[in-house]
Amino acid sequence: MLDTPKKFTLIAGSAEGPSRLNAFDNALLAAGIGNVNLIRVSSILPPNAIEVPHLEIIPGQLMPTAYGTITSEIAGETISAAVAVGIGEQDEYGVIMEFSGRCGQQEAEETVTEMVRAAFRQRQRELKRVIVRAKEHQVQSIGCAFAAVALWY
Amino acid sequence: MLDTPKKFTLIAGSAEGPSRLNAFDNALLAAGIGNVNLIRVSSILPPNAIEVPHLEIIPGQLMPTAYGTITSEIAGETISAAVAVGIGEQDEYGVIMEFSGRCGQQEAEETVTEMVRAAFRQRQRELKRVIVRAKEHQVQSIGCAFAAVALWY
Amino acid sequence: MLDTPKKFTLIAGSAEGPSRLNAFDNALLAAGIGNVNLIRVSSILPPNAIEVPHLEIIPGQLMPTAYGTITSEIAGETISAAVAVGIGEQDEYGVIMEFSGRCGQQEAEETVTEMVRAAFRQRQRELKRVIVRAKEHQVQSIGCAFAAVALWY
Repeated sequence: MLDTPKKFTLIAGSAEGPSRLNAFDNALLAAGIGNVNLIRVSSILPPNAIEVPHLEIIPGQLMPTAYGTITSEIAGETISAAVAVGIGEQDEYGVIMEFSGRCGQQEAEETVTEMVRAAFRQRQRELKRVIVRAKEHQVQSIGCAFAAVALWY
Repeated sequence: MLDTPKKFTLIAGSAEGPSRLNAFDNALLAAGIGNVNLIRVSSILPPNAIEVPHLEIIPGQLMPTAYGTITSEIAGETISAAVAVGIGEQDEYGVIMEFSGRCGQQEAEETVTEMVRAAFRQRQRELKRVIVRAKEHQVQSIGCAFAAVALWY
Repeated sequence: MLDTPKKFTLIAGSAEGPSRLNAFDNALLAAGIGNVNLIRVSSILPPNAIEVPHLEIIPGQLMPTAYGTITSEIAGETISAAVAVGIGEQDEYGVIMEFSGRCGQQEAEETVTEMVRAAFRQRQRELKRVIVRAKEHQVQSIGCAFAAVALWY
């Protein structure tokens, strides 16, 4: 099977770019995860995974990542992306939620936190801690906001 | 290289949720695949893969999965998701097709089955068997239907 | 961790099909990558990766792939998909960009090349070489254009 990730890092960033994909690429660079191959996953924190504040990257590596992102070409618009990790007992899995929208950072953080609460209620599990990371961006021309939980080894 | 999956399991489920992502998460839970990291693949059954009726899950594992899904916020609407696996000779690869739409389960099953037939015709291969799994859902507030072929080890 | 790819191959293809997913499947077949499990990645060329002109496929394998694709049901419309790999120093990572749009092949190639140039400017690195692959398609009924960089081992 594919190795189950053992570490996780929350990151967020935003940027402008000359195209939508370049704006996304630049937001990844701003977040510190620009030079890997993101594999988007949907989105559980493995049991006993350890939070590491700084991501150690081997360029080009395949990096399972849960993320929310939004790109906008409406000048002046405020956009935000957010992720939240809900943690219960240390030796049980956690739940990751992602959100992005045309709103400010605080609304994004509140929304994604409530999504984690709902995921724990649905599982009838006790939520002990929520870790949130979000980024707000004011669009100039083509802007992207990005927030992620990188899962690594 | 990444290990090629050896087993497959068809699953389907549907649910309501307080947000679109929570509805999706709840549909995954209803389908029995809520606590893994789905990696979406597009979508071939490896040769000699064995169908296993029940999915054995290690929480947080990376699970290659071909899936169809639809989320709707239109109360009363009927939505469906379906997957089909087309199988020819046992020692040759099969083809997986996914479908989702604003229709009932029977239409989804017929559509995805016809997609598998077309994929075999295109490959000029004889189709021996089709396995289908689908789920219909009547939306109350925010509803999601999900059907998948999980590929595992 | 997941093995970092060591080889890469640029491919492109287009096709018609009886459904959107069949058109995509047929475009993959036309491109020579129809019988694997594509895992979409976003999208860095690992350092020292070697370009191999022909893709060697084990049916059903998990294949990390950066791709652009577009499907259209507007008869007569011209659609194109393109990928570009930007390469600097051999022992450093490269950058992959993907593009798809309702335009001809030349415009797609120029657009994706400019995206790679912008990605290198943003990283303040010198771009030594760009490899581009694109495919244009004139839609008859349901058509799909696909261009990709497959990352393998």
